[in-house]
Order: sequence, then structure tokens, then C-alpha cells
Amino acid sequence: MSWQVTHLQISEAEHRARCVALQGHLTAQRLRGVVLFDADYIKYFTGFAFIPTERPMAFLMNAAGERALFVPRLEVEHAESLALIDRVFHYLEYPHDPHPMQILAEHLAEFGITGRVGADSDGYPWILGYRGPELSTLTGLTVEHVRAFVEDQMMIKSPAELALLAESVRWANLAHTLLQRYTAVGLTETEVSERASQAATRAMLDAIGPVYRAQSNTYSGAIAGYRGQIGRNSTIPHALANNLTFQPGDVLVTGASAPVWGYVCELERTMVMGQPSAEVERFFGHMLALQEIAFEALQPGAVCADVDRAVRAYYEQHDLMPYWKHHVGHAIGLRYHEGPFLDIGDTTELRPGMVFTVEPGLYVPGVGASAIRIPCSSLRTVAC
Amino acid sequence: MSWQVTHLQISEAEHRARCVALQGHLTAQRLRGVVLFDADYIKYFTGFAFIPTERPMAFLMNAAGERALFVPRLEVEHAESLALIDRVFHYLEYPHDPHPMQILAEHLAEFGITGRVGADSDGYPWILGYRGPELSTLTGLTVEHVRAFVEDQMMIKSPAELALLAESVRWANLAHTLLQRYTAVGLTETEVSERASQAATRAMLDAIGPVYRAQSNTYSGAIAGYRGQIGRNSTIPHALANNLTFQPGDVLVTGASAPVWGYVCELERTMVMGQPSAEVERFFGHMLALQEIAFEALQPGAVCADVDRAVRAYYEQHDLMPYWKHHVGHAIGLRYHEGPFLDIGDTTELRPGMVFTVEPGLYVPGVGASAIRIPCSSLRTVAC
Repeated sequence: MSWQVTHLQISEAEHRARCVALQGHLTAQRLRGVVLFDADYIKYFTGFAFIPTERPMAFLMNAAGERALFVPRLEVEHAESLALIDRVFHYLEYPHDPHPMQILAEHLAEFGITGRVGADSDGYPWILGYRGPELSTLTGLTVEHVRAFVEDQMMIKSPAELALLAESVRWANLAHTLLQRYTAVGLTETEVSERASQAATRAMLDAIGPVYRAQSNTYSGAIAGYRGQIGRNSTIPHALANNLTFQPGDVLVTGASAPVWGYVCELERTMVMGQPSAEVERFFGHMLALQEIAFEALQPGAVCADVDRAVRAYYEQHDLMPYWKHHVGHAIGLRYHEGPFLDIGDTTELRPGMVFTVEPGLYVPGVGASAIRIPCSSLRTVAC
Repeated sequence: MSWQVTHLQISEAEHRARCVALQGHLTAQRLRGVVLFDADYIKYFTGFAFIPTERPMAFLMNAAGERALFVPRLEVEHAESLALIDRVFHYLEYPHDPHPMQILAEHLAEFGITGRVGADSDGYPWILGYRGPELSTLTGLTVEHVRAFVEDQMMIKSPAELALLAESVRWANLAHTLLQRYTAVGLTETEVSERASQAATRAMLDAIGPVYRAQSNTYSGAIAGYRGQIGRNSTIPHALANNLTFQPGDVLVTGASAPVWGYVCELERTMVMGQPSAEVERFFGHMLALQEIAFEALQPGAVCADVDRAVRAYYEQHDLMPYWKHHVGHAIGLRYHEGPFLDIGDTTELRPGMVFTVEPGLYVPGVGASAIRIPCSSLRTVAC
């Protein structure tokens, strides 16, 4: 089964190449090293997957390109298992005495990270009860932000990343197909969603085999559901689940995904319980037209804003702006939302290897007894 | 069913009282207002539950105690449904043009939040592709951090919060009971976990009825599972799920929770497949003794460090420090980890209304074919 590992995981060579690119940025910016606290960034550069908590973790790289992880005692063995990592520094516990950031400060000096350095934030963020000093205040280091560079780097997906996203789509699509098959009047969203998600997850685990790793903090398996966007709740995007019962005529907004070595897709569709009304059909047709316009505009050399502008022109031509609520879509990869955005305010150039959701939506309140939301999220890769 | 709503939800009066306490802090610190970006803080003060994304959201309160939400277009109706909120300010989209933070800056001035103000961070954090300026740089405001005050406020749970946590424990315990019942040699962790979680979730939904709201970004229903901590993986705390198959003699480390209007508990146990070895029994006995010591030390008037110190004394007396990996526990509530911590570095006084996990662990590698982790996480409230 080793070919599957080779095929689906990001290789150590690719992680090393990512680190080399980051090292190039340090050299260009004359930075003496870099400190990254963000769990997704650490995963991107090292493959080290973990759940971020109040115990600070950091990826360190000095100007010579040596790589280290700074972890709490309980992550040491896990960190040491990575061939890519030259050094593992650890502290006993948080908050403890001395505070973990004091320990980090000592190791930074020892590792040659001094003077002017890059970081994704000036200290560990105050999440889940963590409290601690800013890195610059504690150490006297001059901290330059490198988030923009890292975000730019993560925008362009490699062939291995595209393969992982395609694998995610395969299982999200299975979950969604089953969701559609199982949905019926009188059932609740929770039971249908769980049945579809569970069957798709088992198929994914059996098909990929024991090498499978989710490596995601957002999803633990293939998932498809309604997120409470049923009937009268369907005009509220991102509503949290409410366990509603399906009724005839409900307009249903779905969402599906599946984590594959940390990579996730997003698949959203609009469905109707029974026969759609003429009005629902009309809006559904507009939504398909909006999506087609976006697909056509998504060409290398154009900028993100061009896609949103083309789509918004259709809204305006057809007097649909009262039903507009958000831009066309967003990039996706290790995070379920990431930049750039298909938005009139985003002038990022569209380049081969970028992957976007395309999800123009129409939000029409008060049609019949229920309201309508008609988005349709499909993944598209910018082709060469 | 209205009594259930009254019983299980945080009342509007309680949200108002929380805001009044925050307003008192503004007055005491001579701050002209406050801006909170953190989703858990916004939920704590307003009851407004949402999934944080790259679209910035903020809760604003001016010195007069007027309350506002700053949201993207697609959250306006949701925000306006809250009686507690005096004003809803919105922007069209992120990144858009002008950038949402430009719009926020204008509304802050209009709302009387000028000069020296409190905030939980100097600008919206760069999550999920968000990029934007610091609040102070953009507006010229002097930004004082108020996180420590808010964290202190959230530490003490009200009777309504304690009732929600107890409700969470009820359903986590059901999920865990079923997990134990369904686990058998030859099955995989995923199928057993899903079966138990699904049955417990349905029971919870049917018992509480349609008023139920999860309001959690971490959990969507009752859940119990193994998080990959089975057999040889069991010495790695916080391992991500790996779908292992149960084998005779495996030492199993579990985790269970259930979200109830945003509040979550944590219930963790150690189980053995079949007859435990004498060595496993011996360590299990030590773990129970460690937990009992912690329970006894958890008294009002003591400080958090006292509890950890008492527990560590037992480790040392019994030569168990080689198997120590982390402190005794953490507070819990709207976040699955929060401060203060039962840790030798935390001098916070134990006060009635605080709720902690108590989970001393022994991590013993290489016992027989597999390794052992023996934590036991139980919730305890500091009594009056």
C-alpha cells in the first residue's frame, strides 16, 4: 500500500521545498530567522498536525535554514518523529514557572534567531485561556510580520495538493449523494445528515485503507448536512444546526466536505423537497447563469476582482441586487476558507494552481411559506 | 415547552448584567468604549452565536453602555434579531472596497468610541485569509487590552451556566456509556464512536426537544470517541483520529462531550479491552489516588497552584514523575479549555463558581505490546 502513501500525502521533499522558499524570503528581507505560531502554518511547513490549545507551539527556522519545533512536554515524542525537524525544544507545561515564553526566548538565542526576525504574530495568541507577553517585549527582538508572504505562498497549490483536494471532493460528493438519497419529508436534518456522513466516512476509510489520516481540526470524516438552512432559516448563511424536520416545498441548502491529510473541499447545493414552484425555478436558473459567468471569468491573467465584477453585472442587469449577500467565492486548501477572494476588493492576479469555491447566491425572503437561498459552491482550479 | 427555554438558555437579563460589568471596567479604566472581535467573547456578552471567518465581526459598547454589533451584510438579519443590541452596523463584504475596517472606523467615531478604548486585539486577527490594518494605526485610537478582564469575568460561572454544564455532562455521559457498551475486539474506533455519538445525539435532541441549540463551533452533537489513543498510540495525548481496530489488551483512552447552548463539558476515561494486567491495574490505582488528592485540594481560598503541587507530591513520593506529562486540569465553559489552570504556575485563587477538569495522567510507554495512558477527566465545581 506504499503507493497510496506516496500518492496522497505531501512528501517530505515538498515540505523541505516549502521551507527553502520561506528561507529565501528571510534572506531577501535580511531576517535572522522566523517564528511561526499558527497551527496551519506549522502543518504547511512541517506536516506536523496538532490541535492548537493554550499550550504554545512554534516552528522556528534560523538564517542557515535549520528547523526546530517548540512544543510542550506532552508533544515531544510526536515532534521528534518528524525527519524534517533538526531540533525539538520543549517546556514542561503552561502556565508553569518559568512561563513557556521565557523558555522560548532562551532557545531562540541559542538557535541563532536574534536581532530582526520574522513572525506570524508578536507572541502566541490569547486562545483558550492562554496569557503571555509579546515576543518583542520579552526578547528585545525586532519582529517583522511574515503572514502576507506565507499566505501568498499557500495560494498556489502543487500537483500533490491538487490531488489531495480532488480526493476530498470524491468523498464529499459521496456524502452529498447519500444525503440527497436519504432526505425525505418527515425526517429530521440531523438523522439524515448523520446517516449520509457515516456511510460516506466508512466507504472512505475502507477505500483509502489504514494509511488514511484526517489531520483536520474542523472535520473528523466525510460530512454532508444542512446546517439549519432549511425552509424559513435558509436565508441565513452560516446558520448553526437546528434539527429541523423536512416539509414539502422546503428549499434546502446543503454543505459537504471531507478531510484528507488536512486538505478540505467545500461542496454546496440547493435542493427542493418535491416540485419547485415557478419562482424557485426562475431563481435557480439565475443562479446557474451566475455560476457559469464566474467559471468563464476565472482565467489566468485576470484578477480576482474581475470575476466578482462580471458576476455582479449580471445581478444588476437582471435586477437581482436586492437578493445579493456576498462575493463569488474564496480560495480553499488546508483551511476551509483562505485568500485570495473572488471579490471586487481583491486585486490578486489569478494564477495556475489556485483553487476557488464558486458560490454566487440569491437570498429571496418570503417566497410562499418559506424563504429561499440558492447558492451553489463548486471547486474550480485555475488552469495553466 | 417555554420553561425549558427559560431553564437552559442564558437569559437576556444575564447577558445585560455581563455587559454592565464590562461597562464598569470601562469606567474604572477611563476607557471611552470597547471593541471585541473574539467570537466567544461576543457570544458571552450578547448571546450572538456565529462561525468566525475572514469576514470581521465585532461587539461594540460605548461609555454610555450602548451596545452594537458590526457584521457583514449576510449576518444583518441574524444580528438584528437580538433585543440586547441597540445598533447593527454592517459592511457589504470582505475584502471589498472600502475595506471593512474603514467602515468600522467610521462607525466607531459615530458611536462615540474615541480616544482611549479597550479591545481584545488591535484589529481583527488574520484568520482564514483575512488581512487588514491594526485598529490603532487605522484610527489613531489608543488601544488598551481588556482580555485579562474578560477572561477573569468568564471564570466565575453563574447558576444558569452551571445548569448548562450539568446538562452537557448528562449527554456526554450517555454517549460515553454507549461507547463503552459498543466497543469490542475487531471493531474500529470510528464505527463504535459514530454509533455511540449518533444514538446519544438523537436521545439528547428528542429529550430537550426542538428548542435545543448547540451553538458550538467545536461540536455539533453529543460525541464520544477515542481520538486515536488506542494501544501503542495511547501515550500521545491529543492525537488525531486514526481509525484503529480494537485488539485484546488494548488500553483505551476516551473523550466525550456535548454542546448545550455553547457550553461544553469534557469527560475522559481509561478502559482496557479484556482483563487488565497487574501493571495496568497498579497504574490505574495510582491515577485514582492522584485524582482524589486533586478533588480534596480543590477548596475555595486555596490557589490553583496548590492543587497541582499536592498532586505532584504524590507523583514524587511514588517515583511516578517519569510518567508525568501535564498539569492537573483546566477551567471549562464556553471554550473546551479556558483559564485558570490547575498548574504550579497559576496563582489564581479558587473561588465558588469556577469549574475545572481534573485529569492527572500517567503515561507509561512499553508495558507489554502496547503503551499506557491513564488520565481520568472529571468535572468539578468549586463549592461555596
